[in-house]
Amino acid sequence: MKLNIEQAKLAEILETAYLAISPKPTDPILGNILLIANEDGIVSATGTNLNLTIHTTTTANVETSGQVALPAKLLTDTINNVRGEITLEVENQACIITHNSGKCRLIGGKPDEFPTLPKGENPIEVNLSAKKLQAALEGTLYCTNGDETKLVLTGVNFKIDTNKWQAASTNGHKLALVTGILDSEYSDPIDFTVPGKSLSELNKILSQSADTSVCNILLSNKTIEFSLPHTKVISRLLEGEYPKINSLIPRTFEYEFTLERKGFESALKRVSYLAERKQKVVKILWELEATQATLYTEATDIGDAVDSVLMKPATSHSENISIGLNIDYLIEGLKHISTDEIVVRCNKPTQPVIICPMGGLLNQLYLVMPVEIKQGFEKVNNQSTKTEASTQPEPSTEEVTDIAQATNDSDNSETEIQSLVAKDTTKGKSTSRSSRTKKEAATA
Amino acid sequence: MKLNIEQAKLAEILETAYLAISPKPTDPILGNILLIANEDGIVSATGTNLNLTIHTTTTANVETSGQVALPAKLLTDTINNVRGEITLEVENQACIITHNSGKCRLIGGKPDEFPTLPKGENPIEVNLSAKKLQAALEGTLYCTNGDETKLVLTGVNFKIDTNKWQAASTNGHKLALVTGILDSEYSDPIDFTVPGKSLSELNKILSQSADTSVCNILLSNKTIEFSLPHTKVISRLLEGEYPKINSLIPRTFEYEFTLERKGFESALKRVSYLAERKQKVVKILWELEATQATLYTEATDIGDAVDSVLMKPATSHSENISIGLNIDYLIEGLKHISTDEIVVRCNKPTQPVIICPMGGLLNQLYLVMPVEIKQGFEKVNNQSTKTEASTQPEPSTEEVTDIAQATNDSDNSETEIQSLVAKDTTKGKSTSRSSRTKKEAATA
Repeated sequence: MKLNIEQAKLAEILETAYLAISPKPTDPILGNILLIANEDGIVSATGTNLNLTIHTTTTANVETSGQVALPAKLLTDTINNVRGEITLEVENQACIITHNSGKCRLIGGKPDEFPTLPKGENPIEVNLSAKKLQAALEGTLYCTNGDETKLVLTGVNFKIDTNKWQAASTNGHKLALVTGILDSEYSDPIDFTVPGKSLSELNKILSQSADTSVCNILLSNKTIEFSLPHTKVISRLLEGEYPKINSLIPRTFEYEFTLERKGFESALKRVSYLAERKQKVVKILWELEATQATLYTEATDIGDAVDSVLMKPATSHSENISIGLNIDYLIEGLKHISTDEIVVRCNKPTQPVIICPMGGLLNQLYLVMPVEIKQGFEKVNNQSTKTEASTQPEPSTEEVTDIAQATNDSDNSETEIQSLVAKDTTKGKSTSRSSRTKKEAATA
Repeated sequence: MKLNIEQAKLAEILETAYLAISPKPTDPILGNILLIANEDGIVSATGTNLNLTIHTTTTANVETSGQVALPAKLLTDTINNVRGEITLEVENQACIITHNSGKCRLIGGKPDEFPTLPKGENPIEVNLSAKKLQAALEGTLYCTNGDETKLVLTGVNFKIDTNKWQAASTNGHKLALVTGILDSEYSDPIDFTVPGKSLSELNKILSQSADTSVCNILLSNKTIEFSLPHTKVISRLLEGEYPKINSLIPRTFEYEFTLERKGFESALKRVSYLAERKQKVVKILWELEATQATLYTEATDIGDAVDSVLMKPATSHSENISIGLNIDYLIEGLKHISTDEIVVRCNKPTQPVIICPMGGLLNQLYLVMPVEIKQGFEKVNNQSTKTEASTQPEPSTEEVTDIAQATNDSDNSETEIQSLVAKDTTKGKSTSRSSRTKKEAATA
């Protein structure tokens, strides 16, 4: 194998293929990137960790075709630090890289030991705008569960029903859902879950794709292949049934408020510093007449804070409503919405709160569970002239509900809830935030 | 205490005072910043970790004078996230902070428990341009020893002799020295060592000072006070005798080369990837006739690299010289030189190499010890057509010399070397890079 190539072109395909390389490969060959040069002037780079394979191509001046497997990090670092035209010449397993101020020799693995690309059988084909797929990943990946003991929740679940598609993720306390319409119709419902780690890498590739690119998706029994111009991302699917989350989302809402997203996020951040010891709980009082949302936090022996943001209520109710929420979950949800305005929908203080973008590329929804606040809060507002009393605030007790508990009230979601709860109990260590609250209160 | 202040002014003094706060204070009061408001409209912020105290002032509209000690991180985070005019009102130990969209109440410590500023007795006064002091710190701080068992080496040593001053640091393998001239003359020689941690914080403050600022230094028995307009940095001094490093620096050089700094750094970085298993050793061949420096690295079973940079020799020798050096030390030294060109001076391959800036604000010198290379290297250059042979390179042995060993040859530095070596043996764990080389070679 011998070829000449511009540094920028080689660096680009290496960077893409490198996304699939594991930092600690289980087999030494998986620490390599496979480079293949064809006589028609196409050079490909492939990286894999067996769960995820990324294959990408570019053009070069190929003198002699061939293939070589070279240490991924070493090769990428080296190429990123040279400039101009580069020559690659392979003899046996060593590759001499010549650039304008020197050269280096890398000893690689055996290219015939490199795993071949997995091929799915009888794939179903789906086409989706690359930018819409990217928006779906941005809108769901952050709600996947990091805990690998509940493997199916580490992925994003996709469903297709006739011409409707949706992507969803949940960790039991927060839930994200993105929906859209396809150009084609499918007679049988399709349901599959893709590992979050694979989708995170796909997301990086999609973020660099052109606005008009279409992603061709081939779904097989055990694998999914996302094809973009010059790049293929092939991932294993996750096995196991994904919780039926659609029935966990309330269908009607008594309250609806429109807020400016960045202003809400800033106000949450300001009060967050005085909520640290209490699991970052904020009490939000939605004041209909004053058309503002007032945010209260407090931390025993440290202090308390109040802040407010303007809002537009669109609701038939005239009574104010007050809901306790986890600030970190709220801020995280707002970060993954890209529109200037958001819509907040809720019912009772014990039921899920829904946040949606106002407009945007896709229908997007973020569901977060409330935290019950029994007393306290609002100190700084009511007692600013009575600081002596408030230096010894009474402890306020909180109970964090999870999605399964809260939706026990609702009538149409019992079977789905049971499946979610059943998975919860198999986890070994409980993820119930209620129990953590109690433990922390006991040790405080 | 009650005052109104612009957010930017308050944020600035808090950020400065916060530099002295320990992340894990030994006493809860040390986690606070002390704010003092005077009726003449001056507000000060003070932070301390007992070794280092930072006191800084600004102006505000003070309605009622007073003082308050508030949690440093909480206060700084809160003020950094509000905008516009802020009101601070203190009642007992609680401070109500009111801003344009809300307020918060912070409960602080007892201001009378806050340590008072340390005062030195009979101080010696030295004045130095803030920018020159900053350049001296930039040029020496990176060579201080991180290992606290040899406490005096964790600091930068300063010496004043009549009107000459110098700052120096060393960890036994590399050494940095910066010298300059004072406006005043001092009859007795002055010698003191300031903790590197204190100077790192001072360096941050100096980097924001005006080009014309003068730093007034008051040196006492146990403390040093650096005064800049509005800010005082007071540090404890380090006890113990600092090694007499001036005699470790060769006075004459057989070779002298001028190189472009960034080009040299880039070439070192490119070959560094193929030197990883061998303690990042580069062999540099200074080719007088070809007016270039050729850099060789190699890593057993991984590969090797060669690169070159142009140079201007200024030396009476006609023979090339080849020296082994640690790439990381070289790159680190080059990063702390700000001029476009550098001068490299050396004698034999076993003696220290000196790197100096070409021009610059101060006289600056970086000394790095060579690494002995017995065989190997230069493979990619000589054997690019014989890759079969070179896939099994013979191991090359290296010995890293430390400053004390190498300068044993020289005639005038014996006592100083002994003091450095004596300190070395008290360290508990050896810092000799030779012994580490052997250990790593044995396990490889």
